[in-house]
Amino acid sequence: MAISLGELAVRFGCELRGEPDALVERVATLTNADARSVAFLAEERNRRQLMETRAGVVVLDRESAADCPTAALICSNPRATFARIVALLHPAPTQAAGIHPNAVVAPSARIDPSARVGAFSVIGERVEIGADAVIGPHCSLEQDVKLAQGVRLVARVTLCHGVQIGARTLIQPGAVVGADGFGFAREDGQWLKIPQVGTVRVGPDVEIGANTTIDRGAIEDTIIEEGVKLDNQIQIGHNCRIGAHTAIAGCTGISGSTVIGKHCMIGGAVAMAGHVTIADHVIITGNAMVTGSVLRPGVYSSGIPLEESHVWRRQVARFKRLDRLVKRVQTLERGAGSAQGEDDE
Amino acid sequence: MAISLGELAVRFGCELRGEPDALVERVATLTNADARSVAFLAEERNRRQLMETRAGVVVLDRESAADCPTAALICSNPRATFARIVALLHPAPTQAAGIHPNAVVAPSARIDPSARVGAFSVIGERVEIGADAVIGPHCSLEQDVKLAQGVRLVARVTLCHGVQIGARTLIQPGAVVGADGFGFAREDGQWLKIPQVGTVRVGPDVEIGANTTIDRGAIEDTIIEEGVKLDNQIQIGHNCRIGAHTAIAGCTGISGSTVIGKHCMIGGAVAMAGHVTIADHVIITGNAMVTGSVLRPGVYSSGIPLEESHVWRRQVARFKRLDRLVKRVQTLERGAGSAQGEDDE
Amino acid sequence: MAISLGELAVRFGCELRGEPDALVERVATLTNADARSVAFLAEERNRRQLMETRAGVVVLDRESAADCPTAALICSNPRATFARIVALLHPAPTQAAGIHPNAVVAPSARIDPSARVGAFSVIGERVEIGADAVIGPHCSLEQDVKLAQGVRLVARVTLCHGVQIGARTLIQPGAVVGADGFGFAREDGQWLKIPQVGTVRVGPDVEIGANTTIDRGAIEDTIIEEGVKLDNQIQIGHNCRIGAHTAIAGCTGISGSTVIGKHCMIGGAVAMAGHVTIADHVIITGNAMVTGSVLRPGVYSSGIPLEESHVWRRQVARFKRLDRLVKRVQTLERGAGSAQGEDDE
Repeated sequence: MAISLGELAVRFGCELRGEPDALVERVATLTNADARSVAFLAEERNRRQLMETRAGVVVLDRESAADCPTAALICSNPRATFARIVALLHPAPTQAAGIHPNAVVAPSARIDPSARVGAFSVIGERVEIGADAVIGPHCSLEQDVKLAQGVRLVARVTLCHGVQIGARTLIQPGAVVGADGFGFAREDGQWLKIPQVGTVRVGPDVEIGANTTIDRGAIEDTIIEEGVKLDNQIQIGHNCRIGAHTAIAGCTGISGSTVIGKHCMIGGAVAMAGHVTIADHVIITGNAMVTGSVLRPGVYSSGIPLEESHVWRRQVARFKRLDRLVKRVQTLERGAGSAQGEDDE
Repeated sequence: MAISLGELAVRFGCELRGEPDALVERVATLTNADARSVAFLAEERNRRQLMETRAGVVVLDRESAADCPTAALICSNPRATFARIVALLHPAPTQAAGIHPNAVVAPSARIDPSARVGAFSVIGERVEIGADAVIGPHCSLEQDVKLAQGVRLVARVTLCHGVQIGARTLIQPGAVVGADGFGFAREDGQWLKIPQVGTVRVGPDVEIGANTTIDRGAIEDTIIEEGVKLDNQIQIGHNCRIGAHTAIAGCTGISGSTVIGKHCMIGGAVAMAGHVTIADHVIITGNAMVTGSVLRPGVYSSGIPLEESHVWRRQVARFKRLDRLVKRVQTLERGAGSAQGEDDE
Repeated sequence: MAISLGELAVRFGCELRGEPDALVERVATLTNADARSVAFLAEERNRRQLMETRAGVVVLDRESAADCPTAALICSNPRATFARIVALLHPAPTQAAGIHPNAVVAPSARIDPSARVGAFSVIGERVEIGADAVIGPHCSLEQDVKLAQGVRLVARVTLCHGVQIGARTLIQPGAVVGADGFGFAREDGQWLKIPQVGTVRVGPDVEIGANTTIDRGAIEDTIIEEGVKLDNQIQIGHNCRIGAHTAIAGCTGISGSTVIGKHCMIGGAVAMAGHVTIADHVIITGNAMVTGSVLRPGVYSSGIPLEESHVWRRQVARFKRLDRLVKRVQTLERGAGSAQGEDDE
C-alpha cells in the first residue's frame, strides 16, 4: 500500500517538510531506507545515520529536523508516530472468524461468532470468548477461562482454569498463565503441596511475551493490571500484582506476593524477592537484585559489569579482604592518634 | 462443601478453640476471610492481620492463639494443616479416564485403563502409562517413556524418548524433560554435536514447574530424586543429580554434571556452575552465584542489592579502584613504620 | 551394533593400542564402562577414573595414553572423535517420510516428499520445507516460513511468519522463533505497540535449545549465523546478530540490537544489555553482566561467588561503606603529609 507524505502528515498531525505528493509504502531503518521508505530518528546515537539517510521521509522531532537530508515529518513523539505509521503500512493479515474443524470445544463454552479458534486448540467447559478474539493453534483454555473482546493468543498459549484476560490483550507463543504457584508446607523433611485455589486476572491492553509464566494465586488471585507489557521468559510468582502501564524486560523473575506499582520500568534479568513492594514510577535497571521494598520513585541499580577475567579475579580478591583492609586502616588511625571512635559497625 | 470446625479438629489433630458445630466451606486470607472461611497464620509478618481477621476459624500455633479474635485450630505446623484443609475444601475436579478420540497413540503403547489421555496428545511406541495417570492436552511422550501410577501432566508437557517419571509426580505446562544436553566438541573452530544418549529419570512425588527444562544425560542419565520440587523456568543441565526433597525456586539455572544434595533449598535466579557438588541441607539464597562446591550444610549467599543508581555507580567506581586504595594504605603503613610485612597478595 | 577396535581406528584416524579384533557396542563413562564399552578422557579431572576404568577402549590423547589400563584409541581431539563414535554406535532412529494424517497443511505449502510432518503440526500458507526435514508433533509454522534441507524440529516448535531456518539446523522442544520483539513507544504514560515487521533468519548447522526464544526484528531481521549453538532458555531480543560458530549456554539473555561476533563462547545466565557489540573470539564466563561493548578478544567475567550468609552480609556492609573508608584513608594521608593530591574522584 502506497500513501502520500501529505496524507501521513494529516493523519498523524505532523508538520511536513517536503513534497506532499511523494509516495512511501514501507518502513525501513535510516541506513537501509530508500525513496519509498519511511524511517525515524528517536535516539541520539542514530544522528549520524540520519545525516546519511536516503529515506523517502524521516519521522523526527523539531530539533533534529535541521540534520535531515530528506523530507521530514516533524512531531513531538517520533517513536509513537512511527508506531502508527508501521501499523498503517504493514497491517497484520486478518484471519477469518470461525472454529477450526480440528479444534476441540466443550459444549458449554460460549464463543462469539466473530472470534477465531485455531487448529488443535482445546476450549474447556464454560469458557467464554469475546468478540473478535483470535485463538491461534495449539492453545489450551481450561474450564472457566474468560477472554474479553479482541484478545489475541498467537499460538500455543496455555490458560489454566479460571484465568481472565482483558480486552485486546496479546499473548505470545509458549506463555503459561495460571499454572500452580510454588507453595508447599514443610513437614518431616518433606514438602506437602498447598493447593493453589486463586487464579490470574489480566487486565486490558496487556502484552505477555513468549514463554513467560504467570502463576495462579495461592488463595487470592495474581493480578496484572491494564496496559502492562511483559517481555519474554519472565516469571511472575503467585499473588503478585503488577501495576498499570508497567513494562518489564525479558528474563526477569518476580517472587510471590510482590507488588509492583504503576508506570514502572523494570529491566531485563532482574531478580526480585517475594513480599516486597515497589512504588509507582520506579525504574530498575537490568540485572539488578531486589531484596527489599523500594518506596520512592527513582532509578535504582545493582550489578557490577564485567572486566577481563584476570582483572576481575583480583577485584573479587580485594572485595573478599575488605574486612582486613578496614582493620589496617583502623590500626593506622590508632597510630596517628586520629582514631575517631569509629568502629565501622 | 461445608464442614464443621469440630470435624476439622478431629481429622487433622488440632485443638479447637471455638464452636465445634460452626461451618466453614472455603479458605481465605486473614484479611478477606468471612465467617464461612478458614484462614491461617504462618508468618510473623501477618500478626496484625490476625488481630483484625473475621475468619470463621484460623489455623495457627499455640503461641499465636492468644492474638486470635475468632475460633482457632491450634496445631504445631499450621502451614501443613492448612494445606490439608485446602485440599479437602477445594478438591481438584476429577477427570474421566480414557483416551481422547483426538489423541494419537502408538500401537505398542500400554496405557492403564484408569489413566486419561487428553486431546491432541501423542503417545509414542512402547510408552507405558500407569494407573490413574492423567495426561492433559498437547502432551508428547516419545518412544519408551514410562509414567508410574498417578503421574499428572497438566498440559503441553514434552517427554523425550526413554524418560521415566515416578509415581504421583506433577508436571506443569510447557515443561520439557529429556531434550538434548548441550554437548559439543570443538574442532577447527566449529562445534560437533555429541549425541546425548542418556535419558532423565524423575522420582516419585516430584513437582516440575511451568516451562522448566531438564536435559537428558550425555552418556548416563540426569536424575531428579524423590520429593524434589522445581519451580517455573528452571534449567537443569545434562547429568545433574538433584537430591531427594530439595526445593528450587524459579529461574535458577544449574549447569551440567552438578550434584545437589538432599533437603536443600535453592533460591530463585541462582546461577550454578557445572561439575560442582552441593552437600545435603544447604540453603542458597536467591540470585546467588555458585562457582565451586559447597561441602558443609549452612546458609550461603551472594549478590548485592540495588541502590539509587547514582549511589550505586559511585559504589561500583570505588570497587573498581580497590586496588589503588590498598596501595594507598600500604604507603601509609610504610610511612608509619607499621608495615606488617603484608603484601596483601 | 558391535564394531571392532581396528575398524574404529581406521574410520576415525586413531592410533590403536590394543587388540584390533576386540568388539565394542556402546559408549559409557570411564567409571561405568565394561569390556564392550567405549569411554573417553577429555578433562584432566577424570584422570583418576581413567586409571581405574574397565572400558573396552578409551579414546584419549597421546599424553594420557600411558595412564590407560586398557586398550586406547589415541588421537589429537578425543572429544570430537568420541562424538563421532557415539553417533556411529547410537544412531538416532530414522523416521519415515510423509505427512501425518493429523497434521494440518495449507494448500499453498510446498513440502518435499522426503520430509516428515508429525501429528498435530500446522503448516501455514506458502511454507517451504526442504528435503529430509523432520517436523515433530505440535509444531506450528506460520505463513511464509522456509526450512532448508535436513532441518529438524524435535517437537512443539513455533516458527512465526516468514522465519527462515538453514540446512541441518536442529531445534529442541518449546523453542519460539519469531515472536514479536519488545518494542513500544511511550505516550501519555502508556505504551503503544510498534508492530514488528522484521523476521528471523537462522543459518545452517545451528542448534536452538528447549524453550529458547528468538524475537523477530522490529524493522530489519534478527540474524543467527551458521554453526551457532544456543542452549536452553536463552532469550535473544529483536535485531540481535549472533556471529557464526558462537556458543551460548543456558538462561542467558541478550537485549535487542546487540551484535555478538564469531567464535565467541558466552556462559550461562549472562545478562547482556542492548545495542552493545562483542568482538569475535570473546569468552564471557557464566553469570557475567555486560553493559557495554567488548571490542577485544579475551576472557571476561563479573559476579562474585557466594559465601556463608553471615560472612557475605558483612562483606556487603563493607562494600556499602567503601566511600567512608576512602575518606578515612584520605584523612590519614593528610595527617601523614603524604596526600598525593589524589581526590580519588
